[in-house]
Amino acid sequence: MHIAVLAGDGIGPEVTTQAMKALRALAANGPQFTFTEAPIGDAGYDQTGDPLPEATAELAERADAVLFGAAGTYESDLRPPEARGGHALLRLRKRMDLFANFRPVFAFPELIGASTLRREVIEGVDLVVLRELTGDIYFGQPRGIVTEDGERVGINTMRYTEGEIRRVAHAGFKAAQQRRRKLCSVDKANVLETSALWREVVIEVARDYPDVELTHQYVDAACMLLIRRPLDFDVIVTGNIFGDILSDAAAMLTGSIGMLPSASLNARGQGLFEPVHGSAPDIAGKDLANPLASILSAAMMLRHSLGQPEAATRLEQAVRRVLAEGLRTPDIMEPGATLVGTEAMGDAVARELA
Amino acid sequence: MHIAVLAGDGIGPEVTTQAMKALRALAANGPQFTFTEAPIGDAGYDQTGDPLPEATAELAERADAVLFGAAGTYESDLRPPEARGGHALLRLRKRMDLFANFRPVFAFPELIGASTLRREVIEGVDLVVLRELTGDIYFGQPRGIVTEDGERVGINTMRYTEGEIRRVAHAGFKAAQQRRRKLCSVDKANVLETSALWREVVIEVARDYPDVELTHQYVDAACMLLIRRPLDFDVIVTGNIFGDILSDAAAMLTGSIGMLPSASLNARGQGLFEPVHGSAPDIAGKDLANPLASILSAAMMLRHSLGQPEAATRLEQAVRRVLAEGLRTPDIMEPGATLVGTEAMGDAVARELA
Ligand SMILES: CC(C)[C@H](C(=O)O)[C@@H](O)C(=O)O
Ligand SMILES: CC(C)[C@H](C(=O)O)[C@@H](O)C(=O)O
Repeated sequence: MHIAVLAGDGIGPEVTTQAMKALRALAANGPQFTFTEAPIGDAGYDQTGDPLPEATAELAERADAVLFGAAGTYESDLRPPEARGGHALLRLRKRMDLFANFRPVFAFPELIGASTLRREVIEGVDLVVLRELTGDIYFGQPRGIVTEDGERVGINTMRYTEGEIRRVAHAGFKAAQQRRRKLCSVDKANVLETSALWREVVIEVARDYPDVELTHQYVDAACMLLIRRPLDFDVIVTGNIFGDILSDAAAMLTGSIGMLPSASLNARGQGLFEPVHGSAPDIAGKDLANPLASILSAAMMLRHSLGQPEAATRLEQAVRRVLAEGLRTPDIMEPGATLVGTEAMGDAVARELA
Repeated sequence: MHIAVLAGDGIGPEVTTQAMKALRALAANGPQFTFTEAPIGDAGYDQTGDPLPEATAELAERADAVLFGAAGTYESDLRPPEARGGHALLRLRKRMDLFANFRPVFAFPELIGASTLRREVIEGVDLVVLRELTGDIYFGQPRGIVTEDGERVGINTMRYTEGEIRRVAHAGFKAAQQRRRKLCSVDKANVLETSALWREVVIEVARDYPDVELTHQYVDAACMLLIRRPLDFDVIVTGNIFGDILSDAAAMLTGSIGMLPSASLNARGQGLFEPVHGSAPDIAGKDLANPLASILSAAMMLRHSLGQPEAATRLEQAVRRVLAEGLRTPDIMEPGATLVGTEAMGDAVARELA
């Protein structure tokens, strides 16, 4: 199985290295992997003048799966889009048509203390945000800054076709069928026509899934409910920009964003797997980053793109065991636990797999 | 002083009645008020065929201030926009040019237990979300559902002019000067051109306020930080749609959305004052609603539109005293407190003012 490794910027390389270490440990008595590394993000820009070098994009399209670290930094965000590391990820999502972005949020019992929410509110949380990833205001035309009557005006376009809504709705219902059969669709249908169409199409698709309970929430109310009663949610399906905000809010509930993986899939089953956390340049290269989100992203890759559910489960169980042993990186440290660095955490997971 | 009272739908009328009761109690030894009531929302639609009857809009424009309850219901949200109660509010905001929407979030020490966040995270929270209220994707053209290649397509337009950004930025810096002198501007400048312009203009305006510390956050990160470290925030300024989501998230932090007032102001100092909670039709007419958000909105009205800061402070202190006495409506009830209804809570505040 051929994995494209796009480690990118900031802490991307060091956490991705630990995920590869875990996959190699699995390979000792399981599936075999070939890794090909390629530059992306600021790293891609520095080497080739393009944050998404053509060779990198082609490698990603050819591979069985993409293991992604992080792209972009606050500095490069100030450059024009074509020179921004972060834009490489947007372009790769679009180019590979990775429309279904799954962000599971699971409250690890070992880490309840890391949350800013009360124990009884967060205990047992197990939800998935399914964010549409290739449409919406992220890509809509027209866009830009124009001058009207001597004044600058910023313009972006929110836009969804019924086909785009339908395919992500199907993905949402299917995910709910594999879980507790509850799907909450989030929109702003009381204000936006795009959302009114979103809601209409989701209701049409629901006819094919009579076993799934469908509810609707406005995005502002959904954000409240996530904080108020996160246990009420199973699968949440929403558009690209609302999903960007809601999935970060959901990620924060557990207090351990350093633990959260994600999968972005297209219709051909190809996928890009990345930690929810970003490039965190301030802690890069200091052996401080938590590699578990990247390692758990590798587990999602095994399950969703590589057809290796048993290997995925072994990897997840190894992570649970190192947590149970009390090993903690700084982001999830608590009194009485054992503080370890990025490298030592990766070693511990690999040892569990041996 | 002439106050237009637009009580609207659901629990709007019953909470607004208690706010008027409190204002009348203040009048016994202070400012005098005349109240004129007019229909809006579903109530306006049922009586006149228009959720914002022309006579209501004219009354609001003429009055010294508008005391607003709530408009719309989930039912009327399913009708076309021109028949939706909730749209009356959007139209009135636009018509009166109420561009500056202040939503203070204050963690009442008496109510810390109502939050789903841990005590130490929420204790001392005192922030304001300043949401731009008359621009953005709420009002941008073109918008609608069109057919392209036989497919329905939903379209909305995010749009800000530099003038719109500049005036709300000034309002944000001025508010920060009255408080702890920290302003956090929230956008999505790494993806949206509208946000890139937003950030540029906010930075330009900042030159006039060297005493205010300006920071910037992407909206997804801001939503995280609100949950993670709400104490870090003083004033947050953001656009209409991001403000809609963030202010609800912020409101939920304290766990007592039934306590939170808001003010929407225009450049002429006119304002509309309303509780942050909506019409809550499920508990309407049952004497269950918390009237304190409406009463605290009346206090904001006294301070921001009627030039009566002392009366505002008296009203706020009366609210604090009834809380200290242990009176609680169901939404903020906790063991050992005294459960009261809407009416009794309003009576208690009026008694404190006598
Ligand atoms: C870096 C940024 C462009 C990106 C996004 O907005 O999609 C990030 O926030 C994410 O959620 O993956
Ligand atoms: C009712 C709705 C149109 C409104 C909005 O989105 O502005 C509400 O959510 C609010 O925050 O006042």
